[in-house]
Amino acid sequence: MTAVVALGVLGGMGPAACIDFQWKVLRATAAPTDAANFRVIADNDPGVPMRVAAAEGHGASPAAYLHAMAQRLVTQGATLLAMPCNTAHLFYAEAAASISVPWLHLIHEGAAAARASGAGTIGLLGSGPTVASGMYQRELEGLAVLTDPDGQPQVDAVIARVKGGDLGDGTRRLAQAAAARLVGLGARAVLLGCTELPLALADGDASVPVIDATDALARACVAALRKQIDAQH
Amino acid sequence: MTAVVALGVLGGMGPAACIDFQWKVLRATAAPTDAANFRVIADNDPGVPMRVAAAEGHGASPAAYLHAMAQRLVTQGATLLAMPCNTAHLFYAEAAASISVPWLHLIHEGAAAARASGAGTIGLLGSGPTVASGMYQRELEGLAVLTDPDGQPQVDAVIARVKGGDLGDGTRRLAQAAAARLVGLGARAVLLGCTELPLALADGDASVPVIDATDALARACVAALRKQIDAQH
Repeated sequence: MTAVVALGVLGGMGPAACIDFQWKVLRATAAPTDAANFRVIADNDPGVPMRVAAAEGHGASPAAYLHAMAQRLVTQGATLLAMPCNTAHLFYAEAAASISVPWLHLIHEGAAAARASGAGTIGLLGSGPTVASGMYQRELEGLAVLTDPDGQPQVDAVIARVKGGDLGDGTRRLAQAAAARLVGLGARAVLLGCTELPLALADGDASVPVIDATDALARACVAALRKQIDAQH
Repeated sequence: MTAVVALGVLGGMGPAACIDFQWKVLRATAAPTDAANFRVIADNDPGVPMRVAAAEGHGASPAAYLHAMAQRLVTQGATLLAMPCNTAHLFYAEAAASISVPWLHLIHEGAAAARASGAGTIGLLGSGPTVASGMYQRELEGLAVLTDPDGQPQVDAVIARVKGGDLGDGTRRLAQAAAARLVGLGARAVLLGCTELPLALADGDASVPVIDATDALARACVAALRKQIDAQH
């Protein structure tokens, strides 16, 4: 049974975020035994062209690279794809074109989780390009989405620290401060729209709910894999 | 550069152990940026035939399945292989035959770490077949290796709990008790010879050093990947 469906993970963006996502898939599956888990094939490839640089127009687009990675994962048996990197979703449409299996969209799943929180005003933390692109703002139409351009250097520092392996208290305090600024501006929930951020900030680290887009994607993947298995029976 | 070498991980045995191993590779790499990490391709496939059952003679051998998984990883670009499951190494020779890239041996690396600890008497915790096979005892020739057949049901319970996702205090206490029994028998270090065990027991959880074979394998992989890169330049 387990070999019939499989989740392919486009990783490397960054490597810790890819591993964090795999944990969240495991936890969302909550299988009692090894065999009751889903097969997960992760290509944790840090060679993907840098997303922020490309989005800012001073680097190669990662779209073709991601498309090739997706095709390889499908060749390996993936029946579902996911990419735990928000900024990379700026290139989703081009990367996902003509891929033959469903590819769940992180921004869509993260926004759905934010909407489900019931908060009317969402504070968004993410990379500069993710925030500036309006990806989340479009998905969250009808809700107020707060961003904090003055706090972006702080968020960028948290992301860089996590990418550098620094998951210590200093990193957590920086992330808490960035979230607190959004709460001060009126946010009733804080959405972690960068997959490095859940490694620095958890629910309970702010005075309002913290919504983890990575976890939302993991849960959506598990639900979709279950549906694929049901459809095969 | 990062695409030139890659680590292929034969996973699913169990799924949490495969993710734990990926964390340990990331930590051992200690890269300052995404791009300075190694590509890691993990096939976390819980469909591998059960290792303990096969070793006990009442299940199919996983050797052919593992061989095919290894071949697929090489096709995907892996220049080095690793398999974070001790019991599966009972089938290593058959699975690794005619694979064209190096495949580091977990038992060898775990034993080397135990030897490097300087302890003359090593307490071994692992699955029943791992302990009974003498795999570690052969690698540790010249040192005293203590096993505790009476404590095996406790160790089996820890392994089953971790596979079922229970990483709570009860699981940790069970693991601590199993380690304490070995210390009581005279162990000067405790070797975790099952990749589920580091999820339940860490260094500091026993009155003697706790040696994590998973971590030893991760460090050896990073060292080997660095050598592969050096050899390419």
